[in-house]
Amino acid sequence: MGARDRKGDREAGDVRAGILVTGNEVVNATIRDENSPWLAEELAGLGIAVDRVLIVPDDAEAIEEGLQHLAARDVEMIITTGGLGPTEDDKTAASVARFAGREMVLDPDMERKIAGILSRYAAARGVEVPKDGLDEANRKQAMVPVGSTPLDPVGTAPGLVVPGPDGVVVVVLPGPPRELRPMWSDAVRTEAVSEVVGRAEELDLLRLRLFGLPESRLAAELRKIQESGADLADLEVTTCLRKGELEVDIRFRPAAAGRANALGDALIEAFPAEVFSTDGTTIDRIVSDLLLGGPYTLSVAESCTAGLLSARISAVPGASRYFMGGAVTYSNDAKESMVGVSPTTLEEFGAVSPETAREMASGIRSSLGTDIGVSITGIAGPDGGSAEKRVGFVCFNVDGGDLGSIELAPTIPGGRNDIRERSALVALHLIRRLLQDSGG
Amino acid sequence: MGARDRKGDREAGDVRAGILVTGNEVVNATIRDENSPWLAEELAGLGIAVDRVLIVPDDAEAIEEGLQHLAARDVEMIITTGGLGPTEDDKTAASVARFAGREMVLDPDMERKIAGILSRYAAARGVEVPKDGLDEANRKQAMVPVGSTPLDPVGTAPGLVVPGPDGVVVVVLPGPPRELRPMWSDAVRTEAVSEVVGRAEELDLLRLRLFGLPESRLAAELRKIQESGADLADLEVTTCLRKGELEVDIRFRPAAAGRANALGDALIEAFPAEVFSTDGTTIDRIVSDLLLGGPYTLSVAESCTAGLLSARISAVPGASRYFMGGAVTYSNDAKESMVGVSPTTLEEFGAVSPETAREMASGIRSSLGTDIGVSITGIAGPDGGSAEKRVGFVCFNVDGGDLGSIELAPTIPGGRNDIRERSALVALHLIRRLLQDSGG
Repeated sequence: MGARDRKGDREAGDVRAGILVTGNEVVNATIRDENSPWLAEELAGLGIAVDRVLIVPDDAEAIEEGLQHLAARDVEMIITTGGLGPTEDDKTAASVARFAGREMVLDPDMERKIAGILSRYAAARGVEVPKDGLDEANRKQAMVPVGSTPLDPVGTAPGLVVPGPDGVVVVVLPGPPRELRPMWSDAVRTEAVSEVVGRAEELDLLRLRLFGLPESRLAAELRKIQESGADLADLEVTTCLRKGELEVDIRFRPAAAGRANALGDALIEAFPAEVFSTDGTTIDRIVSDLLLGGPYTLSVAESCTAGLLSARISAVPGASRYFMGGAVTYSNDAKESMVGVSPTTLEEFGAVSPETAREMASGIRSSLGTDIGVSITGIAGPDGGSAEKRVGFVCFNVDGGDLGSIELAPTIPGGRNDIRERSALVALHLIRRLLQDSGG
Repeated sequence: MGARDRKGDREAGDVRAGILVTGNEVVNATIRDENSPWLAEELAGLGIAVDRVLIVPDDAEAIEEGLQHLAARDVEMIITTGGLGPTEDDKTAASVARFAGREMVLDPDMERKIAGILSRYAAARGVEVPKDGLDEANRKQAMVPVGSTPLDPVGTAPGLVVPGPDGVVVVVLPGPPRELRPMWSDAVRTEAVSEVVGRAEELDLLRLRLFGLPESRLAAELRKIQESGADLADLEVTTCLRKGELEVDIRFRPAAAGRANALGDALIEAFPAEVFSTDGTTIDRIVSDLLLGGPYTLSVAESCTAGLLSARISAVPGASRYFMGGAVTYSNDAKESMVGVSPTTLEEFGAVSPETAREMASGIRSSLGTDIGVSITGIAGPDGGSAEKRVGFVCFNVDGGDLGSIELAPTIPGGRNDIRERSALVALHLIRRLLQDSGG
């Protein structure tokens, strides 16, 4: 089936994209491809489905063949990531030009921009600029296919929007996610890409987030709803376990909004305690909004997580308005000197115990004079477990004084990293519970 | 170039594989593909390079076209993952059979095995076995291409080793990683796969890590080395910017070891201060090894990073032997009360200043009685910057008492997250410098 035929077979509004990831270091698994999942979600938000993802090495022939393979699938857009750096093994721009049948020419405007960026970088680091090497490198990066639209660099590599054969639009983006993401926004604003996006019918998304529910119970509930006769035919439902939380995505065309909302309501009714977000808001943002909207201040004392909870709380801009600080009490001495845990408690109950957690939370709360003090102490492993307190045993305490307090001491499954990350997550959910229960 | 030609062009021992990942949920990024990175590492250990990875939806045509695309690249082996379940949307086995030009036949032995597994599963869960449905499902899963070698299921889905056209061997594995991994070991023991593995010559890897060097200067140096006449023809060199560090991978066959080491030495000579690892060891591990090998203890005081450095230090198992804890002094009050920064210093120089950093480091050092105290205070943004102290301005202090001390106050580029992550990284490198300079 030829390109035209296959595109013609699809419904109006059904617009597809292919993603070409380039990089030896991705093919050989030295680094993970973070870009194609991110782009797939961005594209889904614009109503564009990803048709396939191809990961190829830094090899001109492989990149060109990859572009041809994706184009043969009759996608409207191809997005490439990586291979835009100054070194010899960065070959994407030239390969895309050959695929599109376009000459490479020097863009003097881009050359100036890159030169400016490079000398600012060098100046900021106090290093000397080796004139020749830099000139050659930035000239390579300033070469663009004739008729393409350059995208300004976020790092040093410019991106490109290149008109390809048969109306396919090729968006060429750099590999580092912190450069790719803002440049993708720029790409979407170009005429060529916005024309493709305009042809797509946007799917709406209803996203529920749940905490504390096994995936199998959610699956069983979805089956029950379906068997009870609910019409889910034109809803695209995906469930996904993501770092300890369950995410249910319901995608739908505007005409199916009623059925999508009914399904959402049925899940909220089935799991009222577990659904904590119905508009895609993350737990980090929910806790931040609760604290920004109220008068309360927060401090934390961490042992096994050793800063992960503090780092996560303070990752939200504006956290300094309610987050005062914390203690990383990794040693017993630190537990005594920084948050005043009594030696007797440590002796009698151990460093990982509800009693120690209680004194850590009240200790940091009074030491920093905050309304709420939160503590985590646990056994992250791989060593330190016992028959009584296994690896993964973690004690939490949220001490809100008159606001009330919450204690919890679960055994969390997984390896050292899982246990630490999951513990920080559990603590965030406990803070949310205290704030919501107290009307804060 | 035809298949034979291209394979013929490659050196003896250069054996390649392609990976075909199937699944709507992978293409649309609902779940991450954990299998292809894992397989790439397993294959590298056997001396087999991955030529490319293709991710396609659960669509028979897409799978068959994907197999053809990978085969056209003249790989010796194709590994497929996913699409082996009992449901309608599991289409991999039949697509592989069509690609290989082989009929599907019922394997009665496999049918019995699957039936046994399914009834044990059902019994363990206390559910009734819907006789007809199971029969149909297990019959589908017991259909195998003529002449293939079935791999026993770890879950319920059997795998396959299928002889394909032109001598390519197709290994068909299920999607769940906990099923795929043990079944891959079984696949490697089959005659067809072990014959391919036997033809591969293992590549050695020399990995350098550098810190504090712009990628463009590394590129210029590599060009200079090449232009000076060094023979790099049979070395596979990739450079990669990874979270603020540069990684140079030199892959080579045993015969080229001399040239690989000469290139490594040339880079170490060119950048003696920037190369910090010549055997792939991470900075986290280097700092940990230095501390485990010496008598020194460590504590940290963090403001803008708010726990990221503590979390990273404590992520290495065994850190409790040298890491005592730290203070997250997010507010000025916390800087005064937890690490004794004087109000005058805060008033006169500001919370983000080398003076405050100095008092934070010495404060946490004496408060926890450690040999080394480390501090970070900076402006992570998006707000809080000024003309004099821009967003990204971060002050570091490593106070080692008699061991010496290091100060640094760079302006780090990027967004809030980048600045925080990069700051924790810079601090690790400063700790390394102090320990190495002091012979610790």
